Amino acid sequence: MNIDEYMTDLGRRARAASRAMARASTAARNAALESVAVAIERDRAALTEANARDLARARDKGHDAAFIDRLTLSDKALNTMVEGLRQVASLADPIGEISGLKFRPTGIQVGQMRVPLGVIGIIYESRPNVTIDAAALCLKSGNAAILRGGSEALECNTALAKLIGEGLEAAGLPQDAVQVVGTADRAAVGKLITMTDYVDVIVPRGGKSLIARLMEEARVPMIKHLDGICHVYVDDRADLAKALAICENAKTHRYGTCNTMETLLVARGIAKDVLPVLARAFQAKEVELRVDPAARAVLEAAQIGALVDATEEDWRTEYLAPVLAIKVVENLDQAIEHINEYGSHHTDAIVTEDHDRAMRFLREVDSASVMVNASTRFADGFEFGLGAEIGISNDKLHARGPVGLEGLTSLKYVVLGHGEVRQ
Amino acid sequence: MNIDEYMTDLGRRARAASRAMARASTAARNAALESVAVAIERDRAALTEANARDLARARDKGHDAAFIDRLTLSDKALNTMVEGLRQVASLADPIGEISGLKFRPTGIQVGQMRVPLGVIGIIYESRPNVTIDAAALCLKSGNAAILRGGSEALECNTALAKLIGEGLEAAGLPQDAVQVVGTADRAAVGKLITMTDYVDVIVPRGGKSLIARLMEEARVPMIKHLDGICHVYVDDRADLAKALAICENAKTHRYGTCNTMETLLVARGIAKDVLPVLARAFQAKEVELRVDPAARAVLEAAQIGALVDATEEDWRTEYLAPVLAIKVVENLDQAIEHINEYGSHHTDAIVTEDHDRAMRFLREVDSASVMVNASTRFADGFEFGLGAEIGISNDKLHARGPVGLEGLTSLKYVVLGHGEVRQ
Repeated sequence: MNIDEYMTDLGRRARAASRAMARASTAARNAALESVAVAIERDRAALTEANARDLARARDKGHDAAFIDRLTLSDKALNTMVEGLRQVASLADPIGEISGLKFRPTGIQVGQMRVPLGVIGIIYESRPNVTIDAAALCLKSGNAAILRGGSEALECNTALAKLIGEGLEAAGLPQDAVQVVGTADRAAVGKLITMTDYVDVIVPRGGKSLIARLMEEARVPMIKHLDGICHVYVDDRADLAKALAICENAKTHRYGTCNTMETLLVARGIAKDVLPVLARAFQAKEVELRVDPAARAVLEAAQIGALVDATEEDWRTEYLAPVLAIKVVENLDQAIEHINEYGSHHTDAIVTEDHDRAMRFLREVDSASVMVNASTRFADGFEFGLGAEIGISNDKLHARGPVGLEGLTSLKYVVLGHGEVRQ
Repeated sequence: MNIDEYMTDLGRRARAASRAMARASTAARNAALESVAVAIERDRAALTEANARDLARARDKGHDAAFIDRLTLSDKALNTMVEGLRQVASLADPIGEISGLKFRPTGIQVGQMRVPLGVIGIIYESRPNVTIDAAALCLKSGNAAILRGGSEALECNTALAKLIGEGLEAAGLPQDAVQVVGTADRAAVGKLITMTDYVDVIVPRGGKSLIARLMEEARVPMIKHLDGICHVYVDDRADLAKALAICENAKTHRYGTCNTMETLLVARGIAKDVLPVLARAFQAKEVELRVDPAARAVLEAAQIGALVDATEEDWRTEYLAPVLAIKVVENLDQAIEHINEYGSHHTDAIVTEDHDRAMRFLREVDSASVMVNASTRFADGFEFGLGAEIGISNDKLHARGPVGLEGLTSLKYVVLGHGEVRQ
């Protein structure tokens, strides 16, 4: 069987399984999740051995320490998987809810029912925990999944897939509801992202380069996350204490996350009150500051040096590092304009005590998450109360921002009649 | 300026205008719609003349009568446009609504705000009324639009666009919020559907061949409508009178619409009670019947002839004509299986008095609109109470089924804090 036939077969099985999943009871789906948790606990040793073989091969290939670290299925990672499965099982079932059912003048009732999307393709890199996380979310939301992990994690992923199959079977659900692509051949990905008959959506979990590569070729819609060039705008009606706490948290809580602030915008009217204090706090944590001329003037007047001149490129850069771009703007309008022009429509916050300005920022900043007086670091499925997160979406259609179980569902129209016909 | 530069310029202007539209008041958007209505009434003569020039050219090119008919901007069509503009103005504003605002344990409040998508590209064929319909819906929902109509309607579309621009200006809104592509060059479409920086969604309005062509090349997401292979399944617990009324209406109310029944499925247990009566009714209206062997047996036993044997191809065909495929199935399971396998996930109905079967059909049939005891002909934005319809979507992501104003919007997360930071 060539790779094309192999993937088509996987797709066909997934489509058939998705139909069984769509009608599976809440109890059966939760029972499957619990069975997988029990099986992982039982087979810890075997999973660790499979992972050890993957690790040995990765070391032979000369992968670096960071890579090996991501690939490692530690005891702690196993515990987190098991907890994750039980946590997802405990979430409310998103499927079947009928909303907005209203009578129409013709006598019919029209509403919308939440249903699974169908078949979800997950493409991820070396972390084996994604196999369980993604499978759990797809299964809970009544979907079938085709998982394509990094080729370096193949043994471990295959072992995990076997346990998932076992859990599905124990709950009376089709084993094909979660399939792992069992080949390292790259052509498998090319096929997966173009099988529109068998795959309803692709969720890539990985870096910007993976996503960019997939975007070129995909014909199946993607729920995708590109970069996070997040801004905090400190308005001249900001509360100083809030501004300092939020900016420091947004930049320095973690440097490598997509919801970290990369550009700080400060209103001219408040710059001299805010910038020197903040700059000292950032420099104490060794954050490099790249500033525009107005910010430089304010900082130098306060005897703060070691500043780098920001270039046009800085406004468009996601540093993911202890580097911050700083710009002084005239007012709210200029801040919004800058964010919409240079940002990545991910997460942006305003610090202000002014109600009208807060509401204008919420409405006019064209980003997936917009915040008033809160740290951008809150943009996260768990912090937002989604209970789980399959990813974060930069797209405007379908799911936007952190994507939980609901992002793996769709709304269809239901019509309840009593024999009505159209006149 | 070459076509690439021309379209990029259009895109840039549309993006800038979309920002102004996103913050425009409800009153301003409604005032613009009313101004366009007034301008059309005022300029009836000039519009009719522009249309006459388009018609003359189309006749010279040898287009057929049906084409000329679609291209004609009759007095009645002008009235409908004016009424349509006022009707859209009278709809509730979908923009700005904040839903689900909840406190989180961290102290922040998280909810979702409905906002415009941004820039919408509409690609349509020869009907000039789409220029006004589509512009009205985009404008009402706070979006900017780039309209690309059929090249044969270019003079009329350009004249209409001028009036739209006038209406926008009168309401203090940017004229670039609605732009008509002013060239018949086909390369313009290729550019429009790939300018992901400037266009957020494409809504094609036209036949299956147009959509299929666009799908090949589009990089911008589409809200698209392919075919409508709609089914009615008459269950063996159906009420006979309802079954007859619904089937007749679903097939013969209009033959050429996408929500017309193309395949009738009848449960074996009720076939002899239902099929002969229905067949006589259909044959009286000269509907050709293409039947499977079981249906043939039932019909011939009732002395009904003039039957055509259905082939595998018939189950996958959208006739859009007085032709109906008929198949006898064993039960609900077989009906659902047939619909999910051969249908186009558009609209399907069950006729049954049994509650559990009705609910299973609603849940398990994987279509945009699923109905119990109602004619498939109800699948329509106006019948569903959306107030307007930009199109019907066969997709599962974002909008599914009839798409109203809400389909031209997206939900972004809003976070309201009081200085909270992430721990």
